[in-house]
Amino acid sequence: MRDEAFIPGPRLTLPGAGAGPLAGLSFAAKDLFDVAGHPTGAGNPDWPTGRPLPQRHAWAVQRLLDAGAALAGKTVTCEVSLGILGFNQFDGTPRNPAAPGCLPGGSSSGSASAVAAGTVDTALGTDSGGSVRVPSSLCGLYGIRPTHGRIPADGMVAQAPSFDTTGWFARDAATFARVAAVMLGEAIPEAVAPAPLLLAADAFALADEPVQQALLPVVERVAGLLGKGTERMTLGEPGELAVWGAQRNVIQRSEAWASFRPWIDAANPRFAFNVARNLAFAASLTEAQIALARSVRERARARARLLLEGGAILAIPTTPFTAPPLGLPLPELDRCSERIGLLCSFAGLTGVPQLSLPLAQAGGKPIGLSLIAARGQDARLVAIARAL
Amino acid sequence: MRDEAFIPGPRLTLPGAGAGPLAGLSFAAKDLFDVAGHPTGAGNPDWPTGRPLPQRHAWAVQRLLDAGAALAGKTVTCEVSLGILGFNQFDGTPRNPAAPGCLPGGSSSGSASAVAAGTVDTALGTDSGGSVRVPSSLCGLYGIRPTHGRIPADGMVAQAPSFDTTGWFARDAATFARVAAVMLGEAIPEAVAPAPLLLAADAFALADEPVQQALLPVVERVAGLLGKGTERMTLGEPGELAVWGAQRNVIQRSEAWASFRPWIDAANPRFAFNVARNLAFAASLTEAQIALARSVRERARARARLLLEGGAILAIPTTPFTAPPLGLPLPELDRCSERIGLLCSFAGLTGVPQLSLPLAQAGGKPIGLSLIAARGQDARLVAIARAL
Repeated sequence: MRDEAFIPGPRLTLPGAGAGPLAGLSFAAKDLFDVAGHPTGAGNPDWPTGRPLPQRHAWAVQRLLDAGAALAGKTVTCEVSLGILGFNQFDGTPRNPAAPGCLPGGSSSGSASAVAAGTVDTALGTDSGGSVRVPSSLCGLYGIRPTHGRIPADGMVAQAPSFDTTGWFARDAATFARVAAVMLGEAIPEAVAPAPLLLAADAFALADEPVQQALLPVVERVAGLLGKGTERMTLGEPGELAVWGAQRNVIQRSEAWASFRPWIDAANPRFAFNVARNLAFAASLTEAQIALARSVRERARARARLLLEGGAILAIPTTPFTAPPLGLPLPELDRCSERIGLLCSFAGLTGVPQLSLPLAQAGGKPIGLSLIAARGQDARLVAIARAL
Repeated sequence: MRDEAFIPGPRLTLPGAGAGPLAGLSFAAKDLFDVAGHPTGAGNPDWPTGRPLPQRHAWAVQRLLDAGAALAGKTVTCEVSLGILGFNQFDGTPRNPAAPGCLPGGSSSGSASAVAAGTVDTALGTDSGGSVRVPSSLCGLYGIRPTHGRIPADGMVAQAPSFDTTGWFARDAATFARVAAVMLGEAIPEAVAPAPLLLAADAFALADEPVQQALLPVVERVAGLLGKGTERMTLGEPGELAVWGAQRNVIQRSEAWASFRPWIDAANPRFAFNVARNLAFAASLTEAQIALARSVRERARARARLLLEGGAILAIPTTPFTAPPLGLPLPELDRCSERIGLLCSFAGLTGVPQLSLPLAQAGGKPIGLSLIAARGQDARLVAIARAL
């Protein structure tokens, strides 16, 4: 029986360089990253058709190989990275090893599933609207959405360029930090400098009550490490997270439509209904709507600078709930996606790094606490995760 | 190599009754009609999942079997009958034997293809928005959209109940009339009574110039048979056909959304992009928009009564152009579908019967002239076709 975390067909493997900081580690790559000589599937049966085979590995794949890690396979993704819950109506839905019978989260669903199952040590994902953060939370993994623009996107299927990032997963903080040092090209500091921890009350209020309760001890633990106490605050004005969520959707989807329209016009490809529907709505957005959304993004960015550039760390729930069960009808799936979007939009709009910590459970299922820092402070977040 | 007019898999065949008016004829059934004990595929891979197998044949299938015809297979259809050009991104696009390298028209694409190729003598189709009329025109066949409600729809996958009809195809008028007598349960009159022929100038003006030129001699031939000359008139006020086309889309799509929504909500099925997009737009229609469209339909119905209930026959081009080539990009396919919709909307909105005559060619490809009569005068249209 095939491991449904990986794409159908023979497993695509490559040895790593003989030595290096990641020697001995295995990794999987979401099927959005190019591997030279093999089609990139992108989770949709009509994506590879008519495209030339990649001539070179994606930057992130090459980076891990050069550091000594071995490629153990390419993993299932939501169709062209559009989806946050992890189902795929063509390739199947990877299982959630940490919450049997539940969705794994997506769109980097197979990468998270393979790491959570212990099949690989680490895995590459992409995160435009939450695609590393969400499966990290639902599968109980360390996962990061780095600062936007920090990691080269060469050889990665673009979705929404002003949101697209490359992230990775690991089961333990030490492995996560080893990979982080390679991906960021920067040593992970041993020491964690004192800093205030901001608890975003408006973000917590969007989570289910048991999730809030499960995460508060983790917040205290982080605050203890940072040594300057916890300050309750809000990310936005009342209701502003909902505005940011909606406007993030407008910008991201309009960029996705621009990315995928030439292919859609030429091929009229097959999609699950919800994926096609969301693209169709994006097609009907007007320039005025998109311009309004961009002005809202500027407000969120100003807020991020004000909150974070003094060195504070911000804590929010990564997702508002634990892994939803398989088999939900589409309207319920849509409600889940919309609620998740509210929590993922802050880092998405502002480009700041966000790391999800797998240190809590609610109802027997994992739930992530996210730490957010100012742009460029990716290594600092990793250091905090490792020191906890 | 499989005959791409038929659905993939073993050919589903059934003998006809030993004797009867259709003894010796073979027929194919669009895969929207039930055959007892076999899944109805409806042109979409996720339609049959979880549905019980049909316990009995669809009314139309049983009717032809009882009359002595033998079932020779089930044919490819556009997904859940949504489509007018005949492509199917899952099952493939049946070829157009009369226009190689071109689309066959749809949604009864495989039925028309099999008849045009000579594989079967006749074939069942459905016509909600043009799904028998259009492939008749593009493949050079006799085909009818009967009076709405005339033929029982039992055992046929419903799309838009106030538009859905069951029709059939044949290569020659004699066979077409034999099948018609069985399907209508009414003898086809030998004599054709004198009647005025109305040439709808506004409908002709929507067709390409070579199509208009190709059809005018057929109009004259029909007028000669009817013996009361040709009267040039218009179906609507200036611009009204465009209004009818748009409002027909609103009503038909809103009914299709109501038909398919429970399945879509439960299964989030796979579709070609254009099919999902059109359903998604239907989902966003408001009650007020639908009510407005229904009031426009009343105006079209009043016009049909005024024009036709005195016994006149109306002539319009079945399609505004001959079969488009394969491989067009989606925006061009959409423009083709929209133009076709303008000509198909009159009978769709008003429920009158429309028969397409395969008596003309333009640029070496078939083009149909449609005759339209008052509700219930199906047999009269068939008699005219046979007498020409």
